[in-house]
Order: sequence, then structure tokens, then C-alpha cells
Amino acid sequence: MRDSARVGTGHRSLAVFSDPASVAVVGASANPAKWGYWLARGALAGRDRRSVHLVTRGAAEILGTATAPALTDLPEVPELIAVCVPAAQVGPVVDEALALGVRGVLGITAGVPDAPALAARITAGGARLIGPSSLGLYDARTSLHIAWGNFRAGGLAVISQSGQVGTEIALLARRSGLGISRFVSVGGQLDVTTADLLEDLVDHPGTRAVALYVEGFQDGRRIFDAVRLLKRAGKPVLVLAAGASEAGARAARSHTSALTSPMELVDAACRAAGALRVPTAGALVDVAACLMARIPARGRRVAVLSDSGGQGALAADAAHHRGLTVPRLSPGLSAEVAGHLPVTAAADNPVDLAGAGEADLMSYHDVTRALLRSAEVDSVLVTGYFGRYGLDTAALAGLEQQAAAELAELPHRHGRALVVHSMGPDSDTAAVLRDAGVPVFPTVETALDALAGAAEIGARPGRRILRAAPNGTLPEGYWETRAALVRAGIAFPEARRIHDLGDLTAALAELRGPYVLKASWLEHKTEAGGVRIGLADADEVAAAFTAMHGRLGDGAYTLEEQDVRPHVVELILGGRTDAGLGPMVMIGAGGTEAELHRDTVTECAPVSPRQARAMIRRLRCAPLLTGWRGAPPADLRSLARAVVRVSQLIAGCQDGPVELEINPLRVGPGGVVAVDALLLSSPGPSGHQVQEAP
Amino acid sequence: MRDSARVGTGHRSLAVFSDPASVAVVGASANPAKWGYWLARGALAGRDRRSVHLVTRGAAEILGTATAPALTDLPEVPELIAVCVPAAQVGPVVDEALALGVRGVLGITAGVPDAPALAARITAGGARLIGPSSLGLYDARTSLHIAWGNFRAGGLAVISQSGQVGTEIALLARRSGLGISRFVSVGGQLDVTTADLLEDLVDHPGTRAVALYVEGFQDGRRIFDAVRLLKRAGKPVLVLAAGASEAGARAARSHTSALTSPMELVDAACRAAGALRVPTAGALVDVAACLMARIPARGRRVAVLSDSGGQGALAADAAHHRGLTVPRLSPGLSAEVAGHLPVTAAADNPVDLAGAGEADLMSYHDVTRALLRSAEVDSVLVTGYFGRYGLDTAALAGLEQQAAAELAELPHRHGRALVVHSMGPDSDTAAVLRDAGVPVFPTVETALDALAGAAEIGARPGRRILRAAPNGTLPEGYWETRAALVRAGIAFPEARRIHDLGDLTAALAELRGPYVLKASWLEHKTEAGGVRIGLADADEVAAAFTAMHGRLGDGAYTLEEQDVRPHVVELILGGRTDAGLGPMVMIGAGGTEAELHRDTVTECAPVSPRQARAMIRRLRCAPLLTGWRGAPPADLRSLARAVVRVSQLIAGCQDGPVELEINPLRVGPGGVVAVDALLLSSPGPSGHQVQEAP
Repeated sequence: MRDSARVGTGHRSLAVFSDPASVAVVGASANPAKWGYWLARGALAGRDRRSVHLVTRGAAEILGTATAPALTDLPEVPELIAVCVPAAQVGPVVDEALALGVRGVLGITAGVPDAPALAARITAGGARLIGPSSLGLYDARTSLHIAWGNFRAGGLAVISQSGQVGTEIALLARRSGLGISRFVSVGGQLDVTTADLLEDLVDHPGTRAVALYVEGFQDGRRIFDAVRLLKRAGKPVLVLAAGASEAGARAARSHTSALTSPMELVDAACRAAGALRVPTAGALVDVAACLMARIPARGRRVAVLSDSGGQGALAADAAHHRGLTVPRLSPGLSAEVAGHLPVTAAADNPVDLAGAGEADLMSYHDVTRALLRSAEVDSVLVTGYFGRYGLDTAALAGLEQQAAAELAELPHRHGRALVVHSMGPDSDTAAVLRDAGVPVFPTVETALDALAGAAEIGARPGRRILRAAPNGTLPEGYWETRAALVRAGIAFPEARRIHDLGDLTAALAELRGPYVLKASWLEHKTEAGGVRIGLADADEVAAAFTAMHGRLGDGAYTLEEQDVRPHVVELILGGRTDAGLGPMVMIGAGGTEAELHRDTVTECAPVSPRQARAMIRRLRCAPLLTGWRGAPPADLRSLARAVVRVSQLIAGCQDGPVELEINPLRVGPGGVVAVDALLLSSPGPSGHQVQEAP
Repeated sequence: MRDSARVGTGHRSLAVFSDPASVAVVGASANPAKWGYWLARGALAGRDRRSVHLVTRGAAEILGTATAPALTDLPEVPELIAVCVPAAQVGPVVDEALALGVRGVLGITAGVPDAPALAARITAGGARLIGPSSLGLYDARTSLHIAWGNFRAGGLAVISQSGQVGTEIALLARRSGLGISRFVSVGGQLDVTTADLLEDLVDHPGTRAVALYVEGFQDGRRIFDAVRLLKRAGKPVLVLAAGASEAGARAARSHTSALTSPMELVDAACRAAGALRVPTAGALVDVAACLMARIPARGRRVAVLSDSGGQGALAADAAHHRGLTVPRLSPGLSAEVAGHLPVTAAADNPVDLAGAGEADLMSYHDVTRALLRSAEVDSVLVTGYFGRYGLDTAALAGLEQQAAAELAELPHRHGRALVVHSMGPDSDTAAVLRDAGVPVFPTVETALDALAGAAEIGARPGRRILRAAPNGTLPEGYWETRAALVRAGIAFPEARRIHDLGDLTAALAELRGPYVLKASWLEHKTEAGGVRIGLADADEVAAAFTAMHGRLGDGAYTLEEQDVRPHVVELILGGRTDAGLGPMVMIGAGGTEAELHRDTVTECAPVSPRQARAMIRRLRCAPLLTGWRGAPPADLRSLARAVVRVSQLIAGCQDGPVELEINPLRVGPGGVVAVDALLLSSPGPSGHQVQEAP
């Protein structure tokens, strides 16, 4: 049973935190209101598996176990110590432990002085530290419980940068009938990090899904590499991240950053790694319930089965609202369903039992079976009174539980998911369903949020990581950036650099009108009056130059042939290197109204042509590109190629973080033309630190 | 106590359903699985207040009460009968009752043959009918309980077109610590309607808020008139409506209808009447909990007080996401709050107690007091562990409940709301809070949905009903509609009707270029190639006319001066008469991309200039009108005037339902010009029937 083979397979192993041979709680307490009491109580529960020592000078005995005044008084050197002594004593206790040969330290105490130095002493000696300021850890498989709170054993691992958010997840999971496989409050991460703990979960037996709470993604790439491995191992990760405020993005210099909030970068990283970000602990647990069902929910097609027309209609509306579909039933399936209903009932989706359930509780089973074994839906949502019959009418309790037991077998038999919203969510019947692996929700909105979330994460396989070829330096300055983009295959209109009227005359001889005159060195030209378009001839160009030069002074102006192709759509194409999450590429509705529409899609860079096409399709403005109101469709192949190339430029840039944008990128039936470009080699606030004051 | 004065104040009174002097349950049963049992049990509970008779041939005694075989065997004529006999017997039972002089019939049985004729016999005799197919009714004040289910007495009235949706609301309300003042399942509404019942609630003692479930708004104007009266009486109405599918709108002929879903019309009616539509029963009850708190939540400024930095950050994010604000605290308030926190804690919003709560449970009270008595926020959300101390540590239960009792006094003392999200939502401490009128939620998202909903309905006073002057007929046909709009003060460009090249020559002599040529009789000109813009001179116009005429044949073409003003924004302005909900006006982002952006605002017509300006401000594209990126602002006064006038035209139209749209309406710094108009006197599917197959 013991993982002794793994303990000691190298000093970087985390095994000491999974299944230590011996544990000491230093700072144990007999007072039930103290952390030292909870840690002692939890640790003692694992005494069948390991020796447990309590160290304190405050009580000779705690919970019937004799204490020792100091680590040096113990009969053996504990492999792992949990430290919850006052902050000033943490250093001496840890140094004593290291001298004895302790391998792992769980630092509970907050506010430890000189904590980084202490952490360095721990790791220098080959030991490991979780914390400080950890709320503790729990491992169901090895009965290791050194944490505040009670845990029910189960399949959900919780890795949390906030102990209490982790505790809330565990409590909500328990209410939903789920249990915890491992719980780690990572605390200050001065040694063991979130990424380490995620990697360690990949082959953790018993973990079927992972709840992750993160406040910053400085280590984002490693975190999401681990998330991807977990997904591949069949352990989907649900990500809760704090700090969706866009204060940082607002201060950005480029449109690319202004249009992309830090949380959108996290979302892109989640999509790429096959994970899903959820907004709250409640939403996380609801989706987890669907993922950890005996048959996890997959796909967006839902049959709604209600015993009330009203509830069925509300459920169908709520499903649509969440991007699920409630497809009409085929005539054959409809007829089969109708065979179980009163003659007056309409047998379409949503299905209303219309009294059939009351007349025979097995109707729920019979109709669900017909729906689940058809290939017409991915899952069935039963919504309404089922689960409450027995509460209101004791005589029906037995029959209802029997019907529930049969109902709960159907997902397994037909390989499709069943989810229940019940007006009796805490009833014995609901318990029968949950125990058999069918999630039961107290409201229809939580049931549907869960189904939609499960469908979404199910559709994210955790994509293959592409690598971009290194492409040297990306230069700042309009002309330099333009040249780099042209080398990468992005077309620009013919143009000339203009410093004075002499340049202008020479340029006019070579370029075709109408013309565009720009003060290219400005980042926000429109507001500064630094763009004039539609200049028809030499006279208009000269007048515009004279006026603009008068206002803006000397500079590298640009005279450009105006792109006057019909049926052109203006987009923005850009990207940035995020310090924590890595290179990102963004496509969006562009032009001067880009900030108004905020219609953008961001993904981790580089992307493949297929991924680029998927990004384009997800734009709200995508219909403009595919033949809007009779117009010819845009050249989507060239557009996708441009997205791929920009994504490779960003990802392959070797000179540290950059921020690049082409706006507008004009896309028409005849191809793609970049009309302006901006490159910043010192980008604005990065998305890696999502935690901000709102 | 009895309302005998109201009983008989006219045969249209509903008093017989509120407080009848005597009741008979016809079809009573001794079998707890039968409705007749529930109705009998409930009715008997009111025996202190009225005589209760049970009529059945199936049992001599039910729940210790002797039954009678028929109504004619009773010692008195019951004022109200509840009928739950088999469908075929309902007619004979009711006729017998009417012959005896019964004043009210509660029809429970579904599928009654010839129900409309039966209802007519009931009302002809001066009696009243609720149902058939009602699930029953309940009135807490008068101990009248003739319905399936158990009710807890309280302040929420439930009027529901689906009995089970009503029951779900009542059950969820009970879980949230709320009770029911009156419950009516309206059933088939063959006599008493939803509108009647809403009107009856206006002076119903004990009702403090109303939950309304509706599947169709054929009677929408009366319903919302009653809703407005309820709002004025301090009884806000929360509306749950089924059928948000947009299938009907998709088939619409005009953009106005295509862009406005039936549910948006319901939303407009809710806004005008001071009500709020909610998506689910759960959301309804959550908002109700905030509205029925001792101090109802109002306003959007929230202080978040957590005992975990993570939970505080997640709550702040979730608040922003719902349109609430989490304002920074002033230096003074911040200093005051800091006085209650450990020195290391940052005292800004969200406030993190950072251990202060653990150290002293009164910290929750002290910080909340500082926040509530400041004028800096409208409400405080306490989120996290409070409410759970006593569950995890029995020794703390008493102290925690004491702290809760003091905390719960603060809203009343300072006139601002307090809402709690607790990790122990079912604890005794939570009960202390709820009993004192402080709502407690099991997740932070439900707490914030509730706060946001309460803030929204609080901001809707229930607006004064404006009346439009009757304005005769609105004619179909471009030129006729145009003339009517010009008379109403909407400017159009100079234009001429063109049938042949002769007309064209004459028109060119009078109009200034550039020109627009349109096949004005077409509803979707762009797709049909029925619009040419930017025609510079007579040659281009003639060529365009010849080509268009060749394709589209004879018709009333229009040659128009093109509006070439700079800085123009294209909007759509329209409206329709909804058969159920009445006249509506809509403004939106227009032009050929109107359907893409779906950026519209709809309100009940007519609107005042102030309301029109508010509509414009709510458009997502509103920033384009107020000086976007250095452009001069549009003439908003003229735009608002156009909205008002169109709203008056719609509302004042005397010839039945119409549908009108101006698209595009071109708005610039110099005013408003309508460039195309369409009027339909037989509009598409109406929004009054929101229930549709998804």
C-alpha cells in the first residue's frame, strides 16, 4: 500500500506530501477553535497508516495522544512536519527540523519573518516546503489530512492559491455529493508551486478532475503545460482565476492590448490546454459534477424531460441561452415517446410528461430510455418534480427510489449523460441518483450551466503545441515593421516615405491615386488628425501635406495608394507576448470602431491554418466575410494565412516581449492588404498578473 | 377579522377566493397520494376561520372529518367549492353547485369537456371560476389552503400560469427563508385571469412582492397596468416568462421585427411598469429575497467584505460582471476600516478581514457598520466563512450567533442593505440573519444576481403612462409613408418618383448630385440589387436606371439626393403595435449591418424626449454619436425628437396594428435625415404569444 518506492526517488519528489511514513504537527493544540487542534485531529485520523506526533508545550495530551515539548523529544525523525507555531518561532522550529533530517515542511503560519531565506535553507538541505501561509493538505487515498476543515473522499483534486476558496470548493462539492481526492492550499509557493502540484496530479490515483484556483500566472506556461498533460490523462481541469478587472488593459498603448483583457489571455490558454475557466466556486463544482458523473456530459444537444410544461419551456429557453440546443425529435422517436404519454400530450422536445409521471413513476425511466438510446441527443435533462414525490407523499418514497435506481442505470447502458434538476434536491431519491453517478441540481440554471460547461470543455481536446521558427528581431517604426511584415508575406499598398514637398512630387509620379497621407510615427493618428484619405490628385495631396506638416511638424510621413477595392471588411490583426502566458495572436473587427465593437478572438500563438480559420469563424463580424447580403465572400484563405504568419512572428520573436498590430487589415474578395502597422517592443501591462484592485 | 364587508361588494369581486365563509372540497380523498387528500387536508387547516365540508362517496371520514356524498347533503351552501372529481363529473357537480347558490368554483380537474360553456354558466349565474386545471390557491392571512403542497406564510405572492412553476417558486422561497402571502395557480383562465388576480393583490395585506409566471401576453396591457399599480403600492413584481425562442422574430418581414425578439417586448413592458423579468424560478426567488429584506437592496455600489482575499476578489469580479460597482473607499473610510484590521491588511474595497474575523467575530459587525453608515456604498456583501464558525467549532456557535444578531441590526440602523454569502448557508447563524431580515445565499453568484436584480428593479419607478394623440391612418408604400413621416417632422432628402427615362431627365434638372437610385417598392433592396448609391452625374444615373429597370421591371423608382454629410452615423428607427403588449418604439444601429450588430433598444410607445435620450444612451453604438475619436458629436436633440415622433405615430395609429421602420436614419452634427422607410399594416408574428416551440 505505501508508496515507499516513490519516497526518495530524488530530492525534488513531492511524495513526502502525499504519503509520508511519519508526521509531526508542531504547534498542536487542545483548543477546538485553534488551527493546531484541527491539524492534530486530522493527522491522528491517519494513524493506521503512519506514525503521528504532536509537538507542543501547551498540553501534555491532545485527543488522547501524548504530546512532546519539542521535535528533538520525539522517538523518531518525522518525515513531514506541519508548522503552526507563532510566526517568530517558525524559523527556529524549521532549522531544528532540518538538522534532524525532516524531508518535508508544511508551513501553515502566516507572516513568517524572512520567509524566502527560510525557504532557501529548506530546499538547500534537500527538503521541500509547501507554504508558508498554507491552509494545509489532504490526500484521501493515503488518509493524510493536515488541514482546516472536513473532507469527504472522492475524485476531485483541489489546488488553490487561496485556502478558503479551496475550502469553499470542497464544501460545495460535498453538498453536490462529490468528494475530494487531494487538497493542497499552496500558500506562498516559496518552494512547491501550483505547477509542481498539477504535474504531480497527472498520475495521482483517484483524481478524476481538478479544481484550480490561481491569482497570478507568472508561471503560466508551466501551469498550462501541466493542465494539458492532465487533460490528456483524462483529468479535466476547471480554472478559477481572480481579477477580471480590466484596469490594466485600459492603460494599454495599442488596440491589441486595449481590446484584450488579461482574462481573455487566460481563456486562450485554457482553450489551448483543454481546460475551462469558470467564474465562481459554485459554477466550478456544478461543472465538475457533470464531468465526474458515471457518464460525463458531452455535446450540446439536450433533450429536456419535464413533468410541467412551464418548467420544460423555461428549461429549453435557459438551454438555448447557454448555447445548448434542444433539437426537435424525429417522427420515429417522437412516436416512441408519445407511447409513454397521455394521448393529449405533444411528444416533442422539451417533452412534457403531462401527468404520465404521476400516473406511473417509471414513465421517467421509459421516456429517458427512449431519448438516451436514440442518437438524436447527447444528454437528457430531467427537470421538475421527480425526487420530491417521496418527500410530499411518504407512501411513494419506495417506488420513487426504485424508479430512480432504474433511471440511474440508463446513462451507463446507452453511453449518454443524464442530469437531473429536482424540486427535492436533498431527498433520499436524489441521494439514490447521486450515489449511482447521476448529478442532481437544486435549480435548472445550475444544471444547465453545468451541462454547457461540460460540453464546452469536452469540445477542447487540449491542442498540440506548435512551435514557431525563430525569426530574429521585430523592429519598431512604421517602415521597419512594414518591411518585416512584407517579408513574412503580408501585403501592403505601394507607398513612399515623405519628408518634404520634394519627396511628395517624386512619390506622386510613381503612385496611383486616390492617395492616403499619414503621419506614420503617431500611435493614434485619427485623433491627432494624422490621417487623410481619399486624396484624389497632386493638388489635394500637396494641400493636405502642407496642412498636416503645419500642425504636426517634421517627421516620416507616408504617401500610400489607397485601397479602394469594393466589398472590403476592415479587421485588426495583432498579438503580444505575455510574460506569464506566452505568445498570443488576436484577430478582430478593426478600423476606427474597433474599440466600440470589442469583437476579438485571441489564441495562444502560433496557430495552424485550421486554428486560424476557427478564430475567424468565431468573430461576431464573421458573416460580413462570407457573403453578407449578397456581397461576394472575402478571401478567407489569405486571411487565415495572415493570421498564421503574424502568430508565427510573435511566437518566434527572440528579443523578448513584443506587441504587434495591423489595423486596419483590409480583407476583400481579392485578398488581404495591411494598411497600417504598429510594433512595440516594450508592451503595456501583461496579463500574467490578473489580480488587480477593481 | 373576516372580510365580510368585501364579500358581495359586486359579483365581480374575487373575495370568495380570498376568505370564503365556507368551503367544500368535492372529490376529497383519504389516499395521501391523491389531490383530493391534499385539498382536504389544506382546507381543514382553516377550520378555525370557516366551515369546511368534504364531499365524496369514497370514504365516510377523512382525517377525522365526516364526509357527505353530495353537495346537496351538506348542512349549508358552501360559498366556495374546490372541484377535483373526474373530468366527466365536473359539469354535473358545478351545475348542482350553481343551483344551490355557490359563489366560487376552484376548478382543479384538467381535461374538462366543454369547459368554456361550463365557465359561461358559472359567470352567467354571477359566480366566479378559477381554472380549470388549477393547482389550487392559498392565502396565508385567511388560512385558506386548497392546493397541492405545503406553504410557509410570508410576504411573497405567487400568481402562476403553471401550477408547478408556482410550486417550485414557493419551495425555493422556503429554502431561502421566505414565505408566501398568496398563491394562485390560474389554470385555464376561463373566467378569472392573471390580470384580475394581480389587480386584486394591490391592496392585499401581507403581500410585499409578487412572483408572476406567464406563458402568453394576449392580455398584456391589462397585466402590466396592474403590475404598475403594484409597483406604486410598494409591491414590486418579478416576471418569469416562458418561450424566449426567437423563431417568430426570425420569420419577420421588417428589420424592426427581426431585430426585436418577443422577449424584448416583454422586457420593455417590464421596464415601463417598474417590473423585472428574471430567467428562472431560482433567480426570481433570489431577487425576491433582496427585495423583501428588512432593508431592501437598492443601488449599484457594493462594498465587498470577505474573510479571504480570494473570495473577495472573485466576488468583486462577479459584481463587475453584473453591472454593479465596487468603488474604492475614501481615505477617511479606508482609515476607519483599517482600524478594525490587522496592520498588514489593505483596507480597500473589497475589504479583506485578513484574520480579524477569526480573532474577533465582532469584526464583521464593526467593519460592516463603518461601510453601511458611510454614504459611499448602497449595500454591503459579506462573503465567506461567516455563518460557518459555529458549524466547524461548536464552542464558537453562541458567539457567532450573537455577532450575527448585532450585524443584522445594521441595515435598519443605517438604511442600507446587507446581503450575506455564507459557506454555512443552512447554519443556525444563517437562520439568525434570515430571521432578522438579512438574506443569506449559498453561493456568491446567487447573492450578486440578487443584488443586481434588486438594484435594477429599484431603478425602475414604473413610469407615467403617456398617451399619443390619434393621428389617423399610416399609409403603406414608400412615397405615402414618406409623406406621413415628413408631416410628422422627419426630414428626407429631396427626391423624385421615376417611372421612365423621361421622369429621370426631369428629376436630374431639379436635384443635386451625387444621386441614389432605389427600387422603392422592394422590402429588401440591397439583396435584390435595388439600390445604387454614389451616382455622380446624369450619365451614371441613366446607366444605373437602365440596368436596374432591365432586371426589376416597371415600378415606382426613386431618384434621391445622396446625403454626403461627413461624420454621419446610420441608425434604424422603427416600431410596431404588439397585439398583446401594445405600441413599441425601437432605435438601433442601422444600415446594412443592422442584423449583424443587433444593437437595439425597444420601449413602450409613446416615449418622452427624456426617455428617447435614455434609449439612445443605452445603445452600444452610442459612443459614435457623442464625439467618437475626435469627430464632432451628432445632433442628439434632433435624434431624440425623431424617436419621440415615431413613437407617437405608432401609438396614435387608429387603424390597428402597424409596423414602421426608417433604415437608415442618418444622424450627423447637422441633424437627422431619413433615407428609407417601410410601413406594414399587417405586421409579422406578434410578441404577445411568447410561448413557442424552440
